[in-house]
Amino acid sequence: MPIIVQKFGGTSVADAERIQAVARRVVESAAGGYQVVVVVSAMGRATDQLVQMAHQIMPAPSEREMDMLLATGEQVSIALLSMAIQALGREAKSFTGYQVGILTDTAYGKARIQRIETGKIERALGEGQIVVVAGFQGVTADDDITTLGRGGSDTTAVALAAALKAEVCEIYTDVDGVYTADPNLVPDARLLDRVSYEEMLELASSGTKVLQSRSVEFAAKYGVPVHVRSSFRPDPGTLVTREDARMEDVIVRGVAYDRNEAKVSVLSVPDRPGIAAQLFGAVAQENIVVDMIVQNISQDGTTDISFTVPRTDRAKAVTVVKRQADRIGARGVKHDDRIAKVSIVGVGMRSHSGVAAKMFSVLAKEGVNIMMISTSEIKLSCVIEDKYAELAVRALHEAFGLGKEAVIKE
Amino acid sequence: MPIIVQKFGGTSVADAERIQAVARRVVESAAGGYQVVVVVSAMGRATDQLVQMAHQIMPAPSEREMDMLLATGEQVSIALLSMAIQALGREAKSFTGYQVGILTDTAYGKARIQRIETGKIERALGEGQIVVVAGFQGVTADDDITTLGRGGSDTTAVALAAALKAEVCEIYTDVDGVYTADPNLVPDARLLDRVSYEEMLELASSGTKVLQSRSVEFAAKYGVPVHVRSSFRPDPGTLVTREDARMEDVIVRGVAYDRNEAKVSVLSVPDRPGIAAQLFGAVAQENIVVDMIVQNISQDGTTDISFTVPRTDRAKAVTVVKRQADRIGARGVKHDDRIAKVSIVGVGMRSHSGVAAKMFSVLAKEGVNIMMISTSEIKLSCVIEDKYAELAVRALHEAFGLGKEAVIKE
Repeated sequence: MPIIVQKFGGTSVADAERIQAVARRVVESAAGGYQVVVVVSAMGRATDQLVQMAHQIMPAPSEREMDMLLATGEQVSIALLSMAIQALGREAKSFTGYQVGILTDTAYGKARIQRIETGKIERALGEGQIVVVAGFQGVTADDDITTLGRGGSDTTAVALAAALKAEVCEIYTDVDGVYTADPNLVPDARLLDRVSYEEMLELASSGTKVLQSRSVEFAAKYGVPVHVRSSFRPDPGTLVTREDARMEDVIVRGVAYDRNEAKVSVLSVPDRPGIAAQLFGAVAQENIVVDMIVQNISQDGTTDISFTVPRTDRAKAVTVVKRQADRIGARGVKHDDRIAKVSIVGVGMRSHSGVAAKMFSVLAKEGVNIMMISTSEIKLSCVIEDKYAELAVRALHEAFGLGKEAVIKE
Repeated sequence: MPIIVQKFGGTSVADAERIQAVARRVVESAAGGYQVVVVVSAMGRATDQLVQMAHQIMPAPSEREMDMLLATGEQVSIALLSMAIQALGREAKSFTGYQVGILTDTAYGKARIQRIETGKIERALGEGQIVVVAGFQGVTADDDITTLGRGGSDTTAVALAAALKAEVCEIYTDVDGVYTADPNLVPDARLLDRVSYEEMLELASSGTKVLQSRSVEFAAKYGVPVHVRSSFRPDPGTLVTREDARMEDVIVRGVAYDRNEAKVSVLSVPDRPGIAAQLFGAVAQENIVVDMIVQNISQDGTTDISFTVPRTDRAKAVTVVKRQADRIGARGVKHDDRIAKVSIVGVGMRSHSGVAAKMFSVLAKEGVNIMMISTSEIKLSCVIEDKYAELAVRALHEAFGLGKEAVIKE
């Protein structure tokens, strides 16, 4: 019998009623001829509540103890879901990360999976059990509990699917799937039935929060088909899969945006080798993740360097960069929080020219000034003024023919 | 450095503030020259809340999944307590039952400890860590999580103390220690500084709910001194220990009572071998724990058999016994819920005569009728009418000179 891995997030198991609904869905899949492995997150806001309890004790708790604490959230979910499945007359067995043998490194709070033992799960499946596994958690070689970081349950599900050679990994979530653009912003946005791993990764890094990037990387590496579906509706959702020839026919798959970044510019930086390394080395040391970096040609032996960081890290970034700017003799540091990043993504962009020119002209026609540009093989991102974000997304969505009407028209 | 095991119950770790108070107490003990192992229960009513969640899913959940669920309660406590200890500048490390290696049988919900690995704890103690262990839980040979039943954290603490050859096992609780009688009932009741394991067991089975009987049996078996102390006050408490010569000087150590039992009588039972076995075999099969059993000499080839059971099990017991009574040709079954058991306990009773006579005359003088009598080597229990319970306890307490004034007078 083929194996299927189904992952349900926190909102899908937020209370007894929803857990029972998940149980029904799982049992249906089992009745449909699958061996089912279910991965669940902590119930609703359980993780946040645990974090809050820890912070009542101390502001910066030990990461080992934090993981010990947080892992209880998923353990509660697996026990309750197993009970709910049993209440429907099917056998079920829950396993924590440690019991399965999801072995990770010792980076508490953001551990990486190193190996997965499948013996225990396979034995239980062989006995006709539905197997319920705690997402988000693993165990070190020394038996310490670790967690995989926010959204880590997606990674657990995909990694299990890879290890078990599952036919598909279904990720049930509170959205219907992946859209050509945020449907809250673009009423005309269309649900994508297929998207490639690479496109999904670029969409994720451009602000489309459907799947955690790490889980997509994992899926791409092991070729696990990931099916994003709604927890609450039977709709078909979006399949994230290997790129196929057909996908290249579409130039732009979707439009994404991100309003959570800020821009920092270092002015008149002396144009010497090693300067950029020094600057960004200092930023990295503060654990600030830099997204876009733009440096233009120099004039009079100096150049301006601009970069974007999460808005919450901007103050820290400016402090660090100012210190470096003084040291290297730059003229000054400016920053801007009111920016947005707008991106178009599509594997077809590799083989089509003129996409960038079209994007720039669409923005120009709407009177939107472009502050930074960054490109990858299958993505084009522009930083613009925050207030133009919606306008830009809608205009690009229409210009590249992504809407429902556009499809009907073709 | 000597090892000390300290156990804190649910009320002692009910919120962040109390957890911090426990942390201070633990750190003090460590500063006093001990290697400290702390055992904690789930916070306040956490276990009850988890049970309630399970019952929302199904009325009689699988015991394996129930244990998976309940074990999270203690896991939360150990993480938070470790953080609180670290916040005071001491190193601490938490361990679940599985991580320690508290190996049990597979009787989910009431598992018995089979073996305890001490390597991990000893290593952590050697590193200067305060070790925080989840009470109430263990693990089967197959890595399944088990729980030890209500009050199981006491057993965890005593078992760890035995395995680690600890100097003492301190049980912190919401009472000050063991009293000569319930201080709520007898204002004159005196805190006992020492009590023998046997006395403690008899007191526990007679209604003095300070320590779980299983933990006392464990302590007696391995000779672990158990020190019962208040979580909230620095008072010296009560030491439960091996009987010593001095203890026999006191005839009666304490007066206990239990109002949670009911009496069932089977009338005119044919006096044949095997009848009692048949009767109580049927009761045992329903998992009803019988406390006292009294059978008197027979008249005309029949006898009356009376026994007491927890009041909550009385209805079930009567049903079972009625069926048996019909089968064996007994005349009928009566029951009475309005009873109380009053007991006097003391190792000195072994070597002193006249104790029973004194007890009976004290009760008689107060006009209390005795319905059943049962004796052990160090205990004398009488079942009386419920309404006389307080009166009987106070009268016995005074008659045997157990009060504070009595001590001063001597």
